[in-house]
Amino acid sequence: MIRVLVWNEGEHERMDASVQAIYPDGMHAVIADGLREHLGDEVEVRTATLRDPEHGLSEEVLAATDVLLWWGHMAHDGVDDAVVERVHRHVLSGMGILVLHSAHFSKIFIRLMGTTCSLAWRNDGEQELVWTVAPGHPIAAGIEQPLRIDRQEMYGEFFDVPAPDELVFVSSFAGGEVFRSGMTYRRGRGRVFYFSPGDQEYPVYHHPQIRRVLANGVRWAHPGESARELPTVTNPPRTHA
Amino acid sequence: MIRVLVWNEGEHERMDASVQAIYPDGMHAVIADGLREHLGDEVEVRTATLRDPEHGLSEEVLAATDVLLWWGHMAHDGVDDAVVERVHRHVLSGMGILVLHSAHFSKIFIRLMGTTCSLAWRNDGEQELVWTVAPGHPIAAGIEQPLRIDRQEMYGEFFDVPAPDELVFVSSFAGGEVFRSGMTYRRGRGRVFYFSPGDQEYPVYHHPQIRRVLANGVRWAHPGESARELPTVTNPPRTHA
Amino acid sequence: MIRVLVWNEGEHERMDASVQAIYPDGMHAVIADGLREHLGDEVEVRTATLRDPEHGLSEEVLAATDVLLWWGHMAHDGVDDAVVERVHRHVLSGMGILVLHSAHFSKIFIRLMGTTCSLAWRNDGEQELVWTVAPGHPIAAGIEQPLRIDRQEMYGEFFDVPAPDELVFVSSFAGGEVFRSGMTYRRGRGRVFYFSPGDQEYPVYHHPQIRRVLANGVRWAHPGESARELPTVTNPPRTHA
Amino acid sequence: MIRVLVWNEGEHERMDASVQAIYPDGMHAVIADGLREHLGDEVEVRTATLRDPEHGLSEEVLAATDVLLWWGHMAHDGVDDAVVERVHRHVLSGMGILVLHSAHFSKIFIRLMGTTCSLAWRNDGEQELVWTVAPGHPIAAGIEQPLRIDRQEMYGEFFDVPAPDELVFVSSFAGGEVFRSGMTYRRGRGRVFYFSPGDQEYPVYHHPQIRRVLANGVRWAHPGESARELPTVTNPPRTHA
Repeated sequence: MIRVLVWNEGEHERMDASVQAIYPDGMHAVIADGLREHLGDEVEVRTATLRDPEHGLSEEVLAATDVLLWWGHMAHDGVDDAVVERVHRHVLSGMGILVLHSAHFSKIFIRLMGTTCSLAWRNDGEQELVWTVAPGHPIAAGIEQPLRIDRQEMYGEFFDVPAPDELVFVSSFAGGEVFRSGMTYRRGRGRVFYFSPGDQEYPVYHHPQIRRVLANGVRWAHPGESARELPTVTNPPRTHA
Repeated sequence: MIRVLVWNEGEHERMDASVQAIYPDGMHAVIADGLREHLGDEVEVRTATLRDPEHGLSEEVLAATDVLLWWGHMAHDGVDDAVVERVHRHVLSGMGILVLHSAHFSKIFIRLMGTTCSLAWRNDGEQELVWTVAPGHPIAAGIEQPLRIDRQEMYGEFFDVPAPDELVFVSSFAGGEVFRSGMTYRRGRGRVFYFSPGDQEYPVYHHPQIRRVLANGVRWAHPGESARELPTVTNPPRTHA
Repeated sequence: MIRVLVWNEGEHERMDASVQAIYPDGMHAVIADGLREHLGDEVEVRTATLRDPEHGLSEEVLAATDVLLWWGHMAHDGVDDAVVERVHRHVLSGMGILVLHSAHFSKIFIRLMGTTCSLAWRNDGEQELVWTVAPGHPIAAGIEQPLRIDRQEMYGEFFDVPAPDELVFVSSFAGGEVFRSGMTYRRGRGRVFYFSPGDQEYPVYHHPQIRRVLANGVRWAHPGESARELPTVTNPPRTHA
Repeated sequence: MIRVLVWNEGEHERMDASVQAIYPDGMHAVIADGLREHLGDEVEVRTATLRDPEHGLSEEVLAATDVLLWWGHMAHDGVDDAVVERVHRHVLSGMGILVLHSAHFSKIFIRLMGTTCSLAWRNDGEQELVWTVAPGHPIAAGIEQPLRIDRQEMYGEFFDVPAPDELVFVSSFAGGEVFRSGMTYRRGRGRVFYFSPGDQEYPVYHHPQIRRVLANGVRWAHPGESARELPTVTNPPRTHA
């Protein structure tokens, strides 16, 4: 059983009628449904948003989370630094995390990457094609070549992040730009998957193939039997006799 | 259900009493038992050796194998080139492969790596310590820090292989040498795990933690739901409308 | 002084008037001029082609070459296996190599990669945009974002090569495809740079920015003060006292 | 001309007679001499320490620095956060940085890595052997296999840092531990080299081969002709016509 928590800022849904129309119960609800649809009994999925107490990310909740999904955009600064610190500690201890779309600018992602995480963007609702460049990777299992998204915001290079441990997807846009849209990283004992499709203005999380990618990502990021433990300094005796 | 095939050259067991004493039914039998012990119903494990017809590696057998383990040493040249070609094709098509110890000089590994695969060695039966450098990696799940092997052949750097996709283990030896002893590679659609402990003169495959590493490796190399298909040239029409 | 050898199959120039029109003295001549233009006294550039004795790749010539560039397409099979073996040995010993465009299917590249090196292609003379994804890499120095090629053959994913040590460029095409168009690998002691732009039917090697990439690549692949030596097996005494 | 700045905390030299005996003018002076010795006219080397105004790391100084070396240990917390922010910005903009020994716990390295940067240690003045695992890498040029340090502090795995872009050196210690002692990273437009030998209690920076590694590292980290520019968000028009 993988214990999943889908975290969504949840502000656009309160303010923008266009977003409410696509995601009446919030993006988190649709993302959670997609995971249940694909993973069934393999997962237990909960959700939390910015306005929950402690943003719904208390020590207890995180300690009971195997994989966290994070969507944020307009309210990155509203996330409490103490909570970011806590999430960071849990990721390094072994909790998996999926960082979605505009969460490239979330405090937690910038903290994990150590770079500016800046990129090029343009919102013309143009076609995005998501190409698999690592077809044997478990996150790409069952994904079409290419995965087509009819209307999406463009995210383009240079994306200022460290070279990924594994590059899984590369996107192109109708305007000619490219973007490393699916990348994995190990940080501490935890696994990180960044996946860029998913703007609030388009129904991307209703897309069957996008839901499959997220389900694959949850399985991949699951720490499994690895111990949950923050790496710390030790001062051991000699190991050779 | 993961369909595993443990391939062992099987020549030392015929010729060397000291090896027979440790592995009376062959190293493959002990390796297979270790996998069954850890993975139980999750696997179906068969074995094959050099002297079997087609080395036990017919097209039918390979097509029904999810993960192949390969041990060889004194008879690398005795492996038929057509069989090597066939195994290579299956790995690129998605079959997982675990390459063990002296199989660094097997035809299939050299073919997959593209380098000389040479290394430094010394056989003094000295202590090897296997250190995990990627503690969140599934292949390291449940492995002690360090894993101790009382007596082993020394394999040392420079090991002439490509930089791995993931470095999981690094070993030190009593004589002071180091070796990148656990490394993963993706080739085509297939996953490759090289793991160096396991000389025929020492009972390494009876070691509970070594058996755990191999079991973890089989799980990791399993292609899962990914399609089994050789990458080929295509000449597609435009993808954008 | 970097001693460079530009090797070109040279067959299209003999047979196709359209190629002769673009490259009257052969692609190798234009590539060599581009290197001299950018690197001046830093390089000594020679050329060789398939029909030269030993393809112009004798032991003596290779031993006096720091960086080899390789262009081939229609006559990959015409390259003698013994010469491929020799080039392979020199690369693993430390000679740099730049593999260009359709040389993805050359014997030497397949040998170095260990995979099929297959890809998707379509020749519609469409626009290629080459995006830098590693802006601090020396091979990207001075390159525009994006580098535009008005007319090129499309090369698309999945490109069946190992994940590169460094991904420098990613291209998009007017038809919507993407391609990892600039990748570096270390093999043995040698450095390998694959760069995909450069079809014989378009004047790509006359493009000032493409010439700059190749010049940067030659500098990067230069072994410098590293010893020229094939990795071999050694059997050393204990290193610790 | 590479403009180098050697930064050293400089506190041990003030307080510990044993350190003064080895480094009477500070570790920075000896490190700087080693660079001048190997690189001569290729470099201009300055030094700065914690107690200098702004720690000697003003905007003007950093803007005129191509490669920064950083040694710190007992006073990491004494480094002003605004200065760390400034150094971070310059690294992402293209300034190279060499992070030495106990600076694994410096604010700037933790910021760049995004992990705890914790490790195992033991100070018994035991032998360290530094093995090259990437013999064609420019940082390994001219380095013996192995490089021997008679007496050093032990640093061991697990070292909680991201998997490096390139692993150049792996050390073993008399006590049996291993450590990834030479690693490169690209962050933003800048190049980062972490090199672990160099405890203040032993004369490591007087060691001719260690000085050669640092000189090689400075050359490698030099941004060369790449532009000095912080990656930022852009909102470009379509790139395809």
